[in-house]
Amino acid sequence: MDAGSRIERTLEAALARAGGEDAPPLVASAMRYAVFPGGARIRPRLALGVAAACGGSAPGLAEAAAASIELLHCASLVHDDLPCFDDASTRRGKISVHCAFGEPLAVLAGDGLIVLAFEVLARAGAAAPQRLAPLVTTIAAATGMPNGIVAGQAWESEPAIDLALYHRAKTGALFSAATRAGAIAAGGDPEAWRPLGDYIGEAYQVADDLHDIASSAEEIGKPTGQDAMHGRASAPALLGVEGAIDRLEELVARAIASIPPCEGAGELRAVIQHASKRFVPKSLARVAA
Amino acid sequence: MDAGSRIERTLEAALARAGGEDAPPLVASAMRYAVFPGGARIRPRLALGVAAACGGSAPGLAEAAAASIELLHCASLVHDDLPCFDDASTRRGKISVHCAFGEPLAVLAGDGLIVLAFEVLARAGAAAPQRLAPLVTTIAAATGMPNGIVAGQAWESEPAIDLALYHRAKTGALFSAATRAGAIAAGGDPEAWRPLGDYIGEAYQVADDLHDIASSAEEIGKPTGQDAMHGRASAPALLGVEGAIDRLEELVARAIASIPPCEGAGELRAVIQHASKRFVPKSLARVAA
Repeated sequence: MDAGSRIERTLEAALARAGGEDAPPLVASAMRYAVFPGGARIRPRLALGVAAACGGSAPGLAEAAAASIELLHCASLVHDDLPCFDDASTRRGKISVHCAFGEPLAVLAGDGLIVLAFEVLARAGAAAPQRLAPLVTTIAAATGMPNGIVAGQAWESEPAIDLALYHRAKTGALFSAATRAGAIAAGGDPEAWRPLGDYIGEAYQVADDLHDIASSAEEIGKPTGQDAMHGRASAPALLGVEGAIDRLEELVARAIASIPPCEGAGELRAVIQHASKRFVPKSLARVAA
Repeated sequence: MDAGSRIERTLEAALARAGGEDAPPLVASAMRYAVFPGGARIRPRLALGVAAACGGSAPGLAEAAAASIELLHCASLVHDDLPCFDDASTRRGKISVHCAFGEPLAVLAGDGLIVLAFEVLARAGAAAPQRLAPLVTTIAAATGMPNGIVAGQAWESEPAIDLALYHRAKTGALFSAATRAGAIAAGGDPEAWRPLGDYIGEAYQVADDLHDIASSAEEIGKPTGQDAMHGRASAPALLGVEGAIDRLEELVARAIASIPPCEGAGELRAVIQHASKRFVPKSLARVAA
């Protein structure tokens, strides 16, 4: 079974359990709506790719780690779109969760997805109990405080923003955790995979900034121009568009070069190259690229 | 060290780590504000009491389980108070988190506390790796979907509410998890402790309903009359005030009778009797009681 199908199957099983027969139906629907259909699933693909490159022992635990990371990513999107933050009416090309289900169910769907992420990990953890604590710790650190997604989003409420910490926490942390979690799940050395996650996370942030200025809302499925509107610093603002694209290409090259020598390295390079094709917005793509 | 001090010390250590030097300061303050000073800390006291009654092996893991449950309870209070739910301006006798810090930081503080709860468990889990998976699973099930706090709160957004599921999920689940988590953390049999948690949870729900009709907001530190205002069914509405007090006393008696024979049973009875003194509002307390 290919990586994409393994990810969808694991997410499907988790959401089916969360929406079991006793569940209040609306919030269960809101949680499904937030997860399916997904985006590129880059983070879970990265986690599974690293797990395979590490030898792939305990594949169920790797799938759980990948799904957990994707559930946390989806939760963060639901909460980021709320009226008190970006007040976004669209996401992934459809109506955002709070616009479709109302604000109370959007808050609860996000909460439910966060809890589900850790439950998915724990249910798979029995297969390799020694790996569960480092997995939960790694993924929680990338999500919570002081350096995870919550911290990243919270920097936007500070009177003075630390840009390096902001970007690393809001975007980089979960990518960085994805490679390390894949390694932990498969019994590999997480630190050997940290540079790969860090570079991809940084590349993704630059890509997101480029999409924010270059794409139409129709093309990427969510409101654009948010950085300028909210006065947020971005790579194109700091480096210019050409400079930002150069930086992005450099980061992807560094990411690929950082892959430790291993059996699955070729496949993992393919995952990254495939993902990075989506990084530069169509309207900015260089003819020569 | 007494149970109360062990709970505060564990919560303090968790919040200190979450508010570490890289943390965005406002959300870190909001998280502390949501946790300190606490209420009666009934759930974590129950967890520690059961762990002690089970023999008390791995006390650090029991403290982590207790703190994790309290963090999740605090997170649920922060989100329940949001304008899109109860829109409560006070909690535990002070201004609610969203009124003190604004709505974005209240959403994020709740999210951060949920993640922190699982991180606390995982950091203590290395002491007894085989117990971590059932601990996370038990606590997550009491918090998320389909039967945890998130589900309970979400029933309020349904056009037709299943009252039994609603009460069990919104209030009962975390009490029930508290006794089982205490047992798991200490290497005991969680199922032997399920009735205790279930009875206390049900008693607490009746108590909460009585407080909602009987107390002034000043006395209990949060808005009252919410059930009637939001059209929610409650024990006094169904049984009358006298009937509800009878039911409460019966549930506490059953809870105490359900404690399995064990060395720490006496101490645990004392914890429950102490907690249950707060259950009947002063203005409704019977002279003979």
